[in-house]
Amino acid sequence: MNAKAAALNGVDVPNLFATLDVVRSHPEAASFQFRAANRMVSGTHSMSRISGFFGAGEERTHKAVHTYDADHPEVLTGADNGPTPVEFLLHALASCLTAGVANIASARGIRLNRVESSVTGDIDLMGLLGLDESVRNGYQEIRIDFEIEGDTDTTRLRELVERSVARSAVYDVLTNGVPVKVGFTTR
Amino acid sequence: MNAKAAALNGVDVPNLFATLDVVRSHPEAASFQFRAANRMVSGTHSMSRISGFFGAGEERTHKAVHTYDADHPEVLTGADNGPTPVEFLLHALASCLTAGVANIASARGIRLNRVESSVTGDIDLMGLLGLDESVRNGYQEIRIDFEIEGDTDTTRLRELVERSVARSAVYDVLTNGVPVKVGFTTR
Repeated sequence: MNAKAAALNGVDVPNLFATLDVVRSHPEAASFQFRAANRMVSGTHSMSRISGFFGAGEERTHKAVHTYDADHPEVLTGADNGPTPVEFLLHALASCLTAGVANIASARGIRLNRVESSVTGDIDLMGLLGLDESVRNGYQEIRIDFEIEGDTDTTRLRELVERSVARSAVYDVLTNGVPVKVGFTTR
Repeated sequence: MNAKAAALNGVDVPNLFATLDVVRSHPEAASFQFRAANRMVSGTHSMSRISGFFGAGEERTHKAVHTYDADHPEVLTGADNGPTPVEFLLHALASCLTAGVANIASARGIRLNRVESSVTGDIDLMGLLGLDESVRNGYQEIRIDFEIEGDTDTTRLRELVERSVARSAVYDVLTNGVPVKVGFTTR
C-alpha cells in the first residue's frame, strides 16, 4: 500500500504517523517559529507578508509568498480595503480546528464528506475606542459551530471536534492567552 | 476645511472624532459582531469566507468578499496550500497594532513616514502533536518589533506604540484570552 492509496480525506495517514515517530525520537524537530512582516499602506490599511518559517531543524519557505490586507470598515472611518484584524482571528480559529478534525478523522479511519463551520465574535467598541474603561478592548466571546458529515455515527463525529479542540494551537492561544512582547525602534 | 484636506496618514481625522462623538452619545452603536465561514477543502487545507458583519446598529458587508486558504506545510504532512492558522494570528496582531498607530498618530497630528513591523511566534509542536503533556498546544511567546519613522521625536513615536497596545482588540484577545464556545451538529 503506497502513501497515496492510504490517503483519507486528503490526509496522508502513513506519513502523518511517520512524522509523529520522527518527532517522538527527535523532540528538537518540534521547535517551530512562524513569522509575518507588516507595513502600513495608508491609515488603518496595512499589508502583511507571510513566507519564511523555521521548523524541523531548518529554515523553510511556503510554496508561495502570501500577502494579506487588513483595514477598518468605512463605518469605523477606515477604507475597507480588507477585513478587520479581528476577523482574521476567526479565520485562524476555524482553520485550525478544521485541520485538526481532518487529521484526527483520518487517523481514526473516518471518511469526512463535509466539514463546515461558522464563527462569530462579539465586540463592544466602547472599550477600544476608550469610551468605557469597564469594557475590554477585544472580543467578549467567540462562538464556532461545526457541521460535519462522515461515514460514522454522531458520537464519533462529535468526538473529532472535541479532540481537535483539545489539541488546537489557535484554540489554546485564544482561550488561554500568550505572552506578547512589543519592541520599538526608529531612525 | 473639508475632510479630505484634514486627512493625515490617510486617516480622516474629523470623521474619526465625529465617530467617537456619535458612539459616546449612542453606546448601542458600539456593539459589533464579526464573522467567518470555513469549509474543509482537502486534508488540512480549508478556506474561510469573510463578508458580512453587524455594527453601528445594522447588518453590513465588506466592499468585497474575502476568501483565505489555510493549510499545514508539507513538513507537517499538509499540502501547503496557504499559511498555517497560527500565522494568521500574527497578521491579525500586526495589522491591529498598526491601525492603532495610524489612528493615534493622526489624532495627535503626527505625520508617519513609515510603519513596519515584524512578528514572530515560537511554538513547540510536542504539545499539539500530543507527545508531551507538559507543553502547551499554542505559541509559547509572540514578539512584535516596530520600526516607525515620523515627524516627531523618538519618545512620541514610542508612545504611539504604547497607546496602540493599550487599545488593541487583538493584543487584548491574545494576551488575556477570550471565552470560545464550540458547537457541533450533523445530519
